[in-house]
Amino acid sequence: MTAPRRLIVLGATGTVGRQALAILDEADSPLQVQVLAAHSQAEELAALGPADAQRFLTSDSAQREQLLELLRQGDYEICLNGVVGAAGLAFSEAVLAAGRDLALANKESLVLAGQFLLDLAKANGAHLYPVDSEHSALQQCLQGREQSDIRRLYLTASGGALRDTPLDQLAEVTPKQALDHPNWDMGPRITIDSATMMNKAFEMLEAQWLFGVPATEITVLIHRQSVIHSMVEFHDGQLLAQLGPPDMRFPLHAALHAPHCMPSPLQGFDPLLFRKLELDVPDEQRYPALELAREASRLGGDAGAVLNAADEEAVAAFLNGQLGFLEITSLCAEVLSRCGGNALPNLAAVDAADARAREAFHDLLALQRP
Amino acid sequence: MTAPRRLIVLGATGTVGRQALAILDEADSPLQVQVLAAHSQAEELAALGPADAQRFLTSDSAQREQLLELLRQGDYEICLNGVVGAAGLAFSEAVLAAGRDLALANKESLVLAGQFLLDLAKANGAHLYPVDSEHSALQQCLQGREQSDIRRLYLTASGGALRDTPLDQLAEVTPKQALDHPNWDMGPRITIDSATMMNKAFEMLEAQWLFGVPATEITVLIHRQSVIHSMVEFHDGQLLAQLGPPDMRFPLHAALHAPHCMPSPLQGFDPLLFRKLELDVPDEQRYPALELAREASRLGGDAGAVLNAADEEAVAAFLNGQLGFLEITSLCAEVLSRCGGNALPNLAAVDAADARAREAFHDLLALQRP
Repeated sequence: MTAPRRLIVLGATGTVGRQALAILDEADSPLQVQVLAAHSQAEELAALGPADAQRFLTSDSAQREQLLELLRQGDYEICLNGVVGAAGLAFSEAVLAAGRDLALANKESLVLAGQFLLDLAKANGAHLYPVDSEHSALQQCLQGREQSDIRRLYLTASGGALRDTPLDQLAEVTPKQALDHPNWDMGPRITIDSATMMNKAFEMLEAQWLFGVPATEITVLIHRQSVIHSMVEFHDGQLLAQLGPPDMRFPLHAALHAPHCMPSPLQGFDPLLFRKLELDVPDEQRYPALELAREASRLGGDAGAVLNAADEEAVAAFLNGQLGFLEITSLCAEVLSRCGGNALPNLAAVDAADARAREAFHDLLALQRP
Repeated sequence: MTAPRRLIVLGATGTVGRQALAILDEADSPLQVQVLAAHSQAEELAALGPADAQRFLTSDSAQREQLLELLRQGDYEICLNGVVGAAGLAFSEAVLAAGRDLALANKESLVLAGQFLLDLAKANGAHLYPVDSEHSALQQCLQGREQSDIRRLYLTASGGALRDTPLDQLAEVTPKQALDHPNWDMGPRITIDSATMMNKAFEMLEAQWLFGVPATEITVLIHRQSVIHSMVEFHDGQLLAQLGPPDMRFPLHAALHAPHCMPSPLQGFDPLLFRKLELDVPDEQRYPALELAREASRLGGDAGAVLNAADEEAVAAFLNGQLGFLEITSLCAEVLSRCGGNALPNLAAVDAADARAREAFHDLLALQRP
């Protein structure tokens, strides 16, 4: 693995982008940063990476189009998509259409249009390497294995800020309580999504697309220590797990150098972190979002896009005090059953599904809070 | 994997042999039992496996020679060596010399003559699939990976019957106390070897040969639940573990069908067993045997054979009340430094080393208990 590989970093000024650039500085990596892109932080972007890298600000629509065109041309080996939110999807599409490797930190890409992107990757011989710690773990466990050998995937979850709150108090939970996440320091939406486990529902959908395993054959386990990042059970009963500190640099390093094992100074085993590891089957009554993943999987098509838009609106409404904690998932369920499951032949259909779901959500919200 | 594979089972009337035959009955396996061998239990042997299998009793020296000759001829695809003790070594040699797959449950083969057997396997294109749960776990974690990607192996250990006995009481421990193993029900020598962790020292040597990792890069971890069967850390910091119930059928099934994933009814994930998993770095003062593995690795040649013979004598002396618990490892260390480290060009040298070590042990014992 000595041949240089040209790398494009999207979302370079964000957490994922900055950590990736720090990893490349440390490691004796064959990756050469060729293009850096960010939404709007021009000064920060100028200060990052090698001086001769090309730079794009995607808040400028002309630059965004230039960048998409550059991605489609394919004069690079790998692109890290660290864009936040639904805006990342168009970039994922451009990379996969060019048949290039995609290190994917943008969760929305697969949640909104998983089947579409996987079909695109397959048609163009592109590889998808997830940066999410759970999906990276599954990919590590599956290296050198056949997809047809998988019996079940186990996605671990911290259980979020409210994992120990008595069930009968969940209805009264405040945004402040729900934002107090035990293991990871993240933005507000993902922290609320951890408390409802809607983030794990989205990860079930992502895993379904990445590894060809239906959501009904994916079990979520509560794992408070965030050390076992996920597990695979094979048809012979063998169970493999990937473990390590809860540190994004591990999956990032793996995704950027996949499928090779590129030496790094990262230390996987930590005697203090590994002292006590707990795994528990979650209470489906506490976490109704898990059933929504299975329902979205059954519906197919645009159901992921509908669920994502409904959840985004519901979390915003909860944080604004317009919605109770338990209503986040109950309204999402209602929107999903009203709008989810239409065909998704192209990315325009994602936008349509998104708009339809948000409208349906606000109709329901108005009925509930007249 | 539909082509039938002819299987020879050595030690058919023992625990490993019987469990293997039970697995083949259950699974829709391509394995066809062609030969069954046992030491002396003629009636039990006759009752096992398919009626048309050839049968050998190895306590009869003529039958033993016939069996060795049959193994060397190679008219089979795989042999399970479930023989107990040093007697298993000659059979391992015959299988590997014939270039056939060896599912190895006989620990002594690798402890006594690891380098010799691995060289033989390589020269003849034979594959070695360990049945030991720890080594099977390592092999599962290493499937599809390069040996050169390994940074460190982690072998888990229950810690044995005396893991919670205060250090200053170990000198007075009785055989009854040392025989009370918390997780596995095994014979007396292996149970005492668990309490001293000499069994783990032997497993470090086995892992060194099987996976080409020096004993100094193998870390033993105390794991009370016997669910995480071992782990591999790669040079990029990624850590994979194999988990499952403490049940020999898992590694047996894997070794018999390796490198394929043959569906089985075995269930790897058990929500009750997996509730709480603990990993701790062992106290080297409590377990001086671990340093003996590293010393035997440094000495090389016949050091494994010497350590095994010394330990066999020491455990017998401890069980007979002739030796204190702490003296098991201290006398082994003394014998190892006196006799270990000579070249091991052939299996005759193993017998010579074995005899020399036992003589040295009894000289030392006589000095200590005049």
